[in-house]
Amino acid sequence: MQRIVVIGGGTGSYNILRGLKRYTDNLTAVVTMFDSGGSTGICRDEFGVLPPGDVRRCLLALCDEKKQNLLLRQLFNYRFDKGSGLLGHSFGNLFLTALKEITGSDIEAIEAASQILNIKGRVLPVTLDQAQLCAELEDGAIIKHETNIDVPKHDGNLRIKRVFLDAQASAYCEVLDSIDSADKIVIGPGDLYTSVIPNLLVDGVSEALCNAKGKKIYVCNVMTKFGETNGFKASDFAKEIMGYLGCRFDVMICNDKEVSAAAKQRYASERAFPVEVDKVKVEELGITVLCKDMIFEPDVIRHNPIKLADVIMKL
Amino acid sequence: MQRIVVIGGGTGSYNILRGLKRYTDNLTAVVTMFDSGGSTGICRDEFGVLPPGDVRRCLLALCDEKKQNLLLRQLFNYRFDKGSGLLGHSFGNLFLTALKEITGSDIEAIEAASQILNIKGRVLPVTLDQAQLCAELEDGAIIKHETNIDVPKHDGNLRIKRVFLDAQASAYCEVLDSIDSADKIVIGPGDLYTSVIPNLLVDGVSEALCNAKGKKIYVCNVMTKFGETNGFKASDFAKEIMGYLGCRFDVMICNDKEVSAAAKQRYASERAFPVEVDKVKVEELGITVLCKDMIFEPDVIRHNPIKLADVIMKL
Repeated sequence: MQRIVVIGGGTGSYNILRGLKRYTDNLTAVVTMFDSGGSTGICRDEFGVLPPGDVRRCLLALCDEKKQNLLLRQLFNYRFDKGSGLLGHSFGNLFLTALKEITGSDIEAIEAASQILNIKGRVLPVTLDQAQLCAELEDGAIIKHETNIDVPKHDGNLRIKRVFLDAQASAYCEVLDSIDSADKIVIGPGDLYTSVIPNLLVDGVSEALCNAKGKKIYVCNVMTKFGETNGFKASDFAKEIMGYLGCRFDVMICNDKEVSAAAKQRYASERAFPVEVDKVKVEELGITVLCKDMIFEPDVIRHNPIKLADVIMKL
Repeated sequence: MQRIVVIGGGTGSYNILRGLKRYTDNLTAVVTMFDSGGSTGICRDEFGVLPPGDVRRCLLALCDEKKQNLLLRQLFNYRFDKGSGLLGHSFGNLFLTALKEITGSDIEAIEAASQILNIKGRVLPVTLDQAQLCAELEDGAIIKHETNIDVPKHDGNLRIKRVFLDAQASAYCEVLDSIDSADKIVIGPGDLYTSVIPNLLVDGVSEALCNAKGKKIYVCNVMTKFGETNGFKASDFAKEIMGYLGCRFDVMICNDKEVSAAAKQRYASERAFPVEVDKVKVEELGITVLCKDMIFEPDVIRHNPIKLADVIMKL
């Protein structure tokens, strides 16, 4: 049974975990802890819990998909669409917040939710420390809080020079152990500066990754994102990851399936475009590039869980 | 296996159900649907769900008490003690409200929660119709909404002349079926005008009870309640129940264990006093009276689930 660690957060982790759980029981999701918006931000501010949103999505991804578990999954994924105090709250976030209040610990809350949801694998917060994500733009301006970077409050044409945390955050010990003993470590997919790299800003994570014996795989985004990765090619993603990592990773997985014209048009209205895979430039960094059809297109373009997991398992 | 139906709501139902579930799997809790205060009132007003509070307490009472279910029970019983939008909300109420939104039906929501919590028996709302409980006082004043009667907004020394619903409410069909096929029907314990009698105001319930072949048992309160049953003796409770029922019930269970001096003092400060059991007067109504030690006294005086269940099973 391959021991696989996935590092990220958000929809990217959700998709890849749903695929990988079909192949291995030894799956660990390491999750960014810097989300600050919406229901998650309220839980964080008012209860002092670690931001529950990304944990919730990973738990859902790893959830038993049997029919008798369906309602619990739907419940965990439910968002209140009315109610003076409840509007916008994710029920799963409230679930995790209440469990934290009952057990007294974020880790025990995640473990309890894992049990109740009957999940396969483990979900680990990258850190137990509270810190906020910040970005410095190319004009020197500082953007504070993940949500302001993710949904850009700034001129999205400005490039992000660097992201950093406003307080020291140390890796949760089990994260380092799981990286250390993994056969494969998958970084991404996910928003580069708001879901993936934040994990690498936590003390100890990059060092553990660089020292890890397991194969290090980075899954490149399919589309650029306005305000984060405008005009980025595959090599730009690779260089950024390597910069924060402080070392090389082994394999980069890219999509080579052409995005449909309809999707291109929809995404163009949000100033997002397919990532150009400049394979040679990535290979010049000493990285193996694997290009395949990786996507599926419901309303949005996403990594296909099965295709992606299949490629990773065979590496 | 005895088929037992318990009619009530609130803490009284919670206690008796916890006892009875040890003796029978064929247990149905019929629950008042007129609570209008606090978290329940908010869910009711803002989501249009049936009031979840009493259902929640009955589900908890019937919940599997195995260790692996402990966290889910704690969660279901948890009340948020902070948070701008969440303060005062019972997590169990939000659980039921979210399930109603997902399934589209109050009944399916209760069934889903019953499954998730792995409960023994069934919980049935007495009606699916929305109505508010009202009380007419002896001076002719009308008090609207259960919560204003329960925590009296009026001069609590005034006697309640009658309670009624502000809109027609018909019994949920399965309630009538379960009454019809029950071996024993237990009315109460619970606050007379706000937990017990409201069930009898629903069209079809009293008629079904009067026609039922099963033994009809009423569990009398141990203490009077200011604003509801000041100065009531056992026979006053019996007469009120018979009045709303439109027929006689068979057995009345009363407590004859002396309440401790300390508890008496505490309750006296809330103008609540032990109910005097005027056995002969009740017997004159044609009712068998059973007096026993029925209570336990943690901080508050409650019916002892085991003692009460034991007496009911032996009837």
